[in-house]
Amino acid sequence: MQGMHHILDKSVVKIRSLGPGAPSTDYFPFYGMDFDVPLSEAPKTDCEIAPKATAKIHAGKHDSKNGDSIYDIAIALQYGQGTGSTQLLKFLSEHVKIIHDPPYKNWRCILTAGNTSAFDIILRMFTKPGDYLLVEEYTYPTVYETALPMGLRFSGIRMDDFGMIPAHLDEVLSNWSEDAEKGKKPRLLYVIPCGQNPSGATQPTERRREIYRIAQKHDLLILEDDPYYFIQFPPYTSPTSEEKQDTDLLSVSQNFAEVIDRPLLPSYLSLDNDGRVLRMDSFSKIIAPGARMGWVTAPEQIVERFVRAHEVSVQNPSGFSQLAIFKLLHDYWGHSGFKRWLAHLQIEYGKRRNMMVDLCERHLPHEIMYWTPPSAGFFIWISVDWKQHPYASTKSPREVEQEIYDSAISHGTLVIPGSAFLPEDKEGRMDKVFFRMTYASVPPGTMQEAIRGLGDALREVFRL
Amino acid sequence: MQGMHHILDKSVVKIRSLGPGAPSTDYFPFYGMDFDVPLSEAPKTDCEIAPKATAKIHAGKHDSKNGDSIYDIAIALQYGQGTGSTQLLKFLSEHVKIIHDPPYKNWRCILTAGNTSAFDIILRMFTKPGDYLLVEEYTYPTVYETALPMGLRFSGIRMDDFGMIPAHLDEVLSNWSEDAEKGKKPRLLYVIPCGQNPSGATQPTERRREIYRIAQKHDLLILEDDPYYFIQFPPYTSPTSEEKQDTDLLSVSQNFAEVIDRPLLPSYLSLDNDGRVLRMDSFSKIIAPGARMGWVTAPEQIVERFVRAHEVSVQNPSGFSQLAIFKLLHDYWGHSGFKRWLAHLQIEYGKRRNMMVDLCERHLPHEIMYWTPPSAGFFIWISVDWKQHPYASTKSPREVEQEIYDSAISHGTLVIPGSAFLPEDKEGRMDKVFFRMTYASVPPGTMQEAIRGLGDALREVFRL
Repeated sequence: MQGMHHILDKSVVKIRSLGPGAPSTDYFPFYGMDFDVPLSEAPKTDCEIAPKATAKIHAGKHDSKNGDSIYDIAIALQYGQGTGSTQLLKFLSEHVKIIHDPPYKNWRCILTAGNTSAFDIILRMFTKPGDYLLVEEYTYPTVYETALPMGLRFSGIRMDDFGMIPAHLDEVLSNWSEDAEKGKKPRLLYVIPCGQNPSGATQPTERRREIYRIAQKHDLLILEDDPYYFIQFPPYTSPTSEEKQDTDLLSVSQNFAEVIDRPLLPSYLSLDNDGRVLRMDSFSKIIAPGARMGWVTAPEQIVERFVRAHEVSVQNPSGFSQLAIFKLLHDYWGHSGFKRWLAHLQIEYGKRRNMMVDLCERHLPHEIMYWTPPSAGFFIWISVDWKQHPYASTKSPREVEQEIYDSAISHGTLVIPGSAFLPEDKEGRMDKVFFRMTYASVPPGTMQEAIRGLGDALREVFRL
Repeated sequence: MQGMHHILDKSVVKIRSLGPGAPSTDYFPFYGMDFDVPLSEAPKTDCEIAPKATAKIHAGKHDSKNGDSIYDIAIALQYGQGTGSTQLLKFLSEHVKIIHDPPYKNWRCILTAGNTSAFDIILRMFTKPGDYLLVEEYTYPTVYETALPMGLRFSGIRMDDFGMIPAHLDEVLSNWSEDAEKGKKPRLLYVIPCGQNPSGATQPTERRREIYRIAQKHDLLILEDDPYYFIQFPPYTSPTSEEKQDTDLLSVSQNFAEVIDRPLLPSYLSLDNDGRVLRMDSFSKIIAPGARMGWVTAPEQIVERFVRAHEVSVQNPSGFSQLAIFKLLHDYWGHSGFKRWLAHLQIEYGKRRNMMVDLCERHLPHEIMYWTPPSAGFFIWISVDWKQHPYASTKSPREVEQEIYDSAISHGTLVIPGSAFLPEDKEGRMDKVFFRMTYASVPPGTMQEAIRGLGDALREVFRL
């Protein structure tokens, strides 16, 4: 019924509408919902946000009529706007203002059905078959899988421990000669600035400024995909000997106040004087992936087009998702409670990061390997010096990668080979061997066995 | 992380995975959910499914580990499959088997993010710019709004009180001459067989068989968009004099057992020997539009491609939606409770249909108007004999339509003009004046005032 809105706009007060064919909210078979959620009280010195102590929050069918809330089941489960609900949108726009404070006036947010859906819509809006997309040399495979069927091509920018290398980005663009084979000069830069997937790299502030300047120079739109923004960690430090005694490193406590006050890196959105950044935030890593909800922040002209695209595809995120998250974030936690929850996640995932880095240091063969402790996100990216393989002269990097992968499996460990993060046509030309490992959800005991198994596999393959 | 699945497939038992980067379910801030829902007991003689008496159903985080359910918060809120959750998918596949029993072997279902999203995906899969889509002459405007930006064109098939006219469909296809201007012969027929939007027409069984035969003759895929399937009504009968006394026709009681046993019309899916039907079902009219969830039933080869399309766009419907609806349908109501709910909706919307038809009979000027009481859906479609307008000779139908629309607004009634359901390029050539009105959600008192206002407006415009 989205198509009817323009007609309704003509209506004035006291009109009795026989127009949009929405069902009666009387017949929504959900009269009330209760959610058991973590308490919002500020934790004292420990990292815990008391995740086992819960509060029950209630949503009624007509809370907005009763004055119990500004949002309710009848609104959330009815047809909605292409922007997502105004109530949740307002809260998230405030959040964006608090966290990123975009330095131009007419920015807007829109609720999306997750970053994968948002990325699909953005490519449909801004690209034509044959166009090139600028991406980090190794990137999230769904980027290729989404863009390839649209006929897009990829220009991979080289990376170091701090992500995309600005000089290479500038070089690629400055030397781009438009012709039939090479195609148009790229306009869209896709970047994961925090805890990049797969490399785990996080761009420091100065690098972000430099990349932004290059985007200005070549008039690029920056597509900032930043699901790990709130999973930023303090620098890795080796565990104390006391901590090493502990069988469960996740129980180590940490000063909460210190974490909540630690500044986060500036997003591209926060540096965006020109309105050339389309920032994609997601609830997937900070609330739950199953919400299938995120939000995009961009100039209002782009957001307006995004709304139109929503109206003829996903319409808006699920009302169940919107209601559950609105009740938690707006009606219960508020911005300060949300911030405490995010600090809690930083601490928890930080302990997992520490644990895996420590296990790598203890169990992996340093003489053929290199890694940097990640300062954000879910991943550690380990590099293997494949040329030290005893039969390196007769093998390709892809073959060595496969041998390590197979050996790790036979030692009971699954890691993702680096080639999975290259577009298919680049796999054959790869000259390095990487593996991506996640510490996000594996139980501590399993993590230890898995890293030990990988170490054994590598020693076997390299005859160490 | 969908891209990782093919790698995981290689894994064997006892593998410790450091692979897909899903967050830990420990950090989903929803530990339990309760839903207040209508009781599932069969009503006795009245239409009520006791909508005011409620039961509380509970979902826990790890119900599937405890044996309390086969689905839980941890599963629903984690990353999922492009098919939707296997648990809900199984229930809906059983439902499709019970209701439609498709007469071929390899049909499959997939959970979608609603029919608008499903339609968008189907057009992306099956059309190229310039292609023609066969549609009912007047149809749901989102169809145009979705298809036009993809470069599609429309071939409108004429309709009567029973929907699309088979002879005209055959004629259009038989006389199609492929050339540059005319384009390729259409392959895709979009049809709303029950309570068509906007005409309210419902195709009888024999017409469906005839259209299916024409689809076979011209090798069409039938895109069956059927959100009103379960809102089928018995034939309209004028209210008794006793009922007319009643100020609230919605309180009239009806024999529930009679309704629940009344057979529904056969869907195209149930006639589909060839596997040429893509059926779209939606929860929007039978549970709630905000769920943003539906399901498509089609040959497995098409569903497999649909899954791939989901993986790079919406991924799957919201886990909150899936969980709420799974708890209600599977864990609480079961198939028989669901059927009772659907019968309840038939009765409730049927009473609304009766009420509006009765009001039309009482308040609209019969001498210039024509309508058929709808036998399904949310809409009544009224035709106005515009040639009886006192200045008909100097006016176009579009002008008369506008005059009636404006006059109705000035009498406090909003109805949707028929031109809103034509593609823009056909509006100028329209030769009939229609209005669509909905009885789905307007309160009885408002409905009465609105129809009376419309009657006054028409009498004023036509100087009656």
